[in-house]
Amino acid sequence: MEKNLEIDNTDLKILDLLMQDANMAYTEIGKRIYVSGGTVHVRMKKLEQMGIVRGSQLVIDHTRLGWDISAFLGIYLDKSSLYEEVAVELEKIPEVVNIHYTTGIYSIFAKIVCRDTQHLREVLHDKIQKVGGIQRTETFISLEERILRPIPFEYSND
Amino acid sequence: MEKNLEIDNTDLKILDLLMQDANMAYTEIGKRIYVSGGTVHVRMKKLEQMGIVRGSQLVIDHTRLGWDISAFLGIYLDKSSLYEEVAVELEKIPEVVNIHYTTGIYSIFAKIVCRDTQHLREVLHDKIQKVGGIQRTETFISLEERILRPIPFEYSND
Amino acid sequence: MEKNLEIDNTDLKILDLLMQDANMAYTEIGKRIYVSGGTVHVRMKKLEQMGIVRGSQLVIDHTRLGWDISAFLGIYLDKSSLYEEVAVELEKIPEVVNIHYTTGIYSIFAKIVCRDTQHLREVLHDKIQKVGGIQRTETFISLEERILRPIPFEYSND
Amino acid sequence: MEKNLEIDNTDLKILDLLMQDANMAYTEIGKRIYVSGGTVHVRMKKLEQMGIVRGSQLVIDHTRLGWDISAFLGIYLDKSSLYEEVAVELEKIPEVVNIHYTTGIYSIFAKIVCRDTQHLREVLHDKIQKVGGIQRTETFISLEERILRPIPFEYSND
Amino acid sequence: MEKNLEIDNTDLKILDLLMQDANMAYTEIGKRIYVSGGTVHVRMKKLEQMGIVRGSQLVIDHTRLGWDISAFLGIYLDKSSLYEEVAVELEKIPEVVNIHYTTGIYSIFAKIVCRDTQHLREVLHDKIQKVGGIQRTETFISLEERILRPIPFEYSND
Amino acid sequence: MEKNLEIDNTDLKILDLLMQDANMAYTEIGKRIYVSGGTVHVRMKKLEQMGIVRGSQLVIDHTRLGWDISAFLGIYLDKSSLYEEVAVELEKIPEVVNIHYTTGIYSIFAKIVCRDTQHLREVLHDKIQKVGGIQRTETFISLEERILRPIPFEYSND
Amino acid sequence: MEKNLEIDNTDLKILDLLMQDANMAYTEIGKRIYVSGGTVHVRMKKLEQMGIVRGSQLVIDHTRLGWDISAFLGIYLDKSSLYEEVAVELEKIPEVVNIHYTTGIYSIFAKIVCRDTQHLREVLHDKIQKVGGIQRTETFISLEERILRPIPFEYSND
Amino acid sequence: MEKNLEIDNTDLKILDLLMQDANMAYTEIGKRIYVSGGTVHVRMKKLEQMGIVRGSQLVIDHTRLGWDISAFLGIYLDKSSLYEEVAVELEKIPEVVNIHYTTGIYSIFAKIVCRDTQHLREVLHDKIQKVGGIQRTETFISLEERILRPIPFEYSND
Repeated sequence: MEKNLEIDNTDLKILDLLMQDANMAYTEIGKRIYVSGGTVHVRMKKLEQMGIVRGSQLVIDHTRLGWDISAFLGIYLDKSSLYEEVAVELEKIPEVVNIHYTTGIYSIFAKIVCRDTQHLREVLHDKIQKVGGIQRTETFISLEERILRPIPFEYSND
Repeated sequence: MEKNLEIDNTDLKILDLLMQDANMAYTEIGKRIYVSGGTVHVRMKKLEQMGIVRGSQLVIDHTRLGWDISAFLGIYLDKSSLYEEVAVELEKIPEVVNIHYTTGIYSIFAKIVCRDTQHLREVLHDKIQKVGGIQRTETFISLEERILRPIPFEYSND
Repeated sequence: MEKNLEIDNTDLKILDLLMQDANMAYTEIGKRIYVSGGTVHVRMKKLEQMGIVRGSQLVIDHTRLGWDISAFLGIYLDKSSLYEEVAVELEKIPEVVNIHYTTGIYSIFAKIVCRDTQHLREVLHDKIQKVGGIQRTETFISLEERILRPIPFEYSND
Repeated sequence: MEKNLEIDNTDLKILDLLMQDANMAYTEIGKRIYVSGGTVHVRMKKLEQMGIVRGSQLVIDHTRLGWDISAFLGIYLDKSSLYEEVAVELEKIPEVVNIHYTTGIYSIFAKIVCRDTQHLREVLHDKIQKVGGIQRTETFISLEERILRPIPFEYSND
Repeated sequence: MEKNLEIDNTDLKILDLLMQDANMAYTEIGKRIYVSGGTVHVRMKKLEQMGIVRGSQLVIDHTRLGWDISAFLGIYLDKSSLYEEVAVELEKIPEVVNIHYTTGIYSIFAKIVCRDTQHLREVLHDKIQKVGGIQRTETFISLEERILRPIPFEYSND
Repeated sequence: MEKNLEIDNTDLKILDLLMQDANMAYTEIGKRIYVSGGTVHVRMKKLEQMGIVRGSQLVIDHTRLGWDISAFLGIYLDKSSLYEEVAVELEKIPEVVNIHYTTGIYSIFAKIVCRDTQHLREVLHDKIQKVGGIQRTETFISLEERILRPIPFEYSND
Repeated sequence: MEKNLEIDNTDLKILDLLMQDANMAYTEIGKRIYVSGGTVHVRMKKLEQMGIVRGSQLVIDHTRLGWDISAFLGIYLDKSSLYEEVAVELEKIPEVVNIHYTTGIYSIFAKIVCRDTQHLREVLHDKIQKVGGIQRTETFISLEERILRPIPFEYSND
Repeated sequence: MEKNLEIDNTDLKILDLLMQDANMAYTEIGKRIYVSGGTVHVRMKKLEQMGIVRGSQLVIDHTRLGWDISAFLGIYLDKSSLYEEVAVELEKIPEVVNIHYTTGIYSIFAKIVCRDTQHLREVLHDKIQKVGGIQRTETFISLEERILRPIPFEYSND
């Protein structure tokens, strides 16, 4: 329960700005929240050491790179207890870009990206459905991604 | 069909490195792929103008910030045709961090983050289920997020 | 109950050959089943008048024409009784290439073809889900079409 | 990505006419689109060699031949990975007239035709459910087939 | 709770024999259980007055009379509370031969008989789905009826 | 297709009357349709030999005999192909009073009667679920049986 | 987040004993954990004021009192947003003994008890399904209740 | 059927009061229903011996003790017949606080309590899904528990 004991308001303000733009310079951040760039640097190091900040990621529009199909897979396992083994195998498939272990009717929720239907067939038939322990999959093609934003931050504006 | 006409191998190499670390300095990128930092800068501008690079995003471990629950929502609409209206309303709810319009049994696939069960109740009951056009929702609590990685890049290593 | 009273063995043999190749010349058919080309012609006229032969259709590989996505739609109606009205509207959508009224969980089973995911989004969101009476749809992307053949014929080889 | 590089407007016009009537004579086609019958012949040969035209098929009303039941089968496999083996076995059953490998809750989508309920029982129980790897099937009886038409063509009318 | 207070062992023995053959003569029944035919008559009158015996019914093989399709319908209502109204309407449809109000995913479980697919289409589309309050139906075609027997009787053989 | 060749209008009228009351005397039937009782007898013998009339059955109200629960079971098999074996075992369980082999999500549709919840537990857990090949069952308790009537007869009233 | 700040080890030990037997005398509890009965009394008052202890409840075997059927209801609402109104109405039905607002396919999870099938019919048809906003319900009859125990306590045994 | 033969109106009145407050003193109960405290004591002993009263249970608000998540699990077994074995294993898991053997799509209905999502992951993945015979589970998080009350009592107020 003491997860966020060492997190103060300054940390949250820094995170908030970087959540909006992961490339904002530390000096710019410092200016906006009235601390030095060095303080921002120190705080970020702390947040990384605490495991709160795990890195940053480029957001790209894969359809514009010719990857036409982005889909969620609801995966049924032969038995739910096979999750660990299956997840390790799924990680080896490069088209699988996200894996969640979930409650609900599916044991695993994965996200895949493919170039076209032919590629989707290969990924599903030749890669994913070949993984031992997977019984069957349901595919939800994403027709539009609307927003992709960080968690809402809450801090006092003092 | 001419989506990626202007994309060359250098662009893809730059993207590949930034996909792995969105904060890598352009000079560092340049060194690794034998071009100048300026070239990297020019290429990134082009990729942004083409809409391929949409920004970068901090990856944080929300559970370490006291946001215990991360969940996917499969949303059934009164009618699938209400997607646009509903999506606009969902965007106004800060706990909704991702929205997909999908094929399959759910019309909308959304991701939410909450602090605890009480918060989840508020988000579902007082916010999401109050949105006109939403019939009901199914909730898939994420028990573990395994990987979150970019699409697999393919370029020649010349 | 007298549907096939006027159908004899010769008719079935003609149908069998044309089922295999709709473009086979009547003289060729005649040679193979030991009747004149004129007889084949007469019989085909009769089969068309009886409503048994409804025409012939080119079989093309749409993926080779750049239509990447072929999908089945299971369509739920607001009420099953709306079938007639909905079917009439669906017929007006050119991407809908086949419609079946079915027993089972879906009221209507339709087949659509689209060029890519963006097109699929347009067909589903802007055309099909706009049809009054359609509640929601489930999409089954075809990853491979294996066989497409006529009904098995049964006739005596005398 | 160069699937349709060799396809020009004339090819599409020919296909369009033949999609409407697979038996239309090449000379008639030629007249309508202002080319010679020989040109039509040459183009069709090319389209066949490119694998775009796979043949033509007689469209018959099977109910008028005493085949009362036409049904879609949603097939669940023991494991999705068994698709190849199962498909090969299904091809050997003459009442199976179409097979699709699909995303969604069913691994395979097949179409069958039967004479009556007794025949349906034989096809399901004695043939299809005997195929190793098939777990269970859901049957959607077609009560009416509305349209069966080719993909919508798009070409300039110059 | 006093439903069966007036039922004694003799009553149950009579019921048991008549369950096996509803046409057995009362004198024959009397002989087998060592009472007079008059006693059997008196007891049957009592059982009818108590509402235990509701009549007897001919068991026929409808497929041999040309009624090819016998099906169960799971019926979803717009609201479960519409059961009474819907049941009254279903009773007016002669092809509906049995109606049950059930717990579970369907509100109503009905049995229908039809001559062929065309007739099934009429019954479903023109009759049942026209009933106000019915949202949709799922159809389970009976491929074989195995046994149809009375409840197992339990009485002492004294 | 010659199933009902030997059935004439008189046969259908006899069946119609007996469907309404299986105990009606042949002389009474004869009077109503203007034939002799002997003719009725001869026709019924013929209908029995043809397998159309399979017997007659007492209709009783089992709840009035203390059998409180009447339920339909949707039975999932490990594999649909196990139907024959499972059906043979189900026949041995006296509380199973009807078995249908069906299309749809369940392989078998059975009807059971039980005295109370404790008995239902025994029938499901100790008898039905012990049958090899049964994976799981869904239970639909009948809360009310509305009608139970024969197929609608159609004959000319000459 | 300071929910349990005032709870110490003694409180948990008291709760643990009372969880096992809600009727245990405070003096007996005191003896077992080496405090006075007065201390137990003071602590219980505090726990009640904090809202942790909400009372105690007799555990009875309702089947032995003639209430044969205990069932869970999964309730679908017309819209999930109707939860508050529906819950207020359900509370007025005495046979409803427990109500949960849940994530998942059902909006509400309720537990009911009934005397027999006839009573179940009344509760479902005449009471619950008459509540405005309830679309339909699924019934899960409990065939056996195995354990019913409190949450597992964790305290140091000092 | 003689379950409640020995239960009289006084017993029911005592139960009714104790159902409302399991800690009410016997002398207080006696006063209210005009019998001696000794009579209440004797009757309670009888009710316990008859198995009607199984004990009493403290009702606590687990969320106030830091147990954030209370959930229902619908458990699918490999085969329904494995219920006994699985139930015995589930009883050993302290977070499982209630188990029901049910009709319907799930074989077992269990209730669990957990401290947070991480704990839920442990209970599901490391404990419950490791139990042999469990195929998969569906989780319904309780967002609010509305009422928890005893069965409605019915006795004459004489």
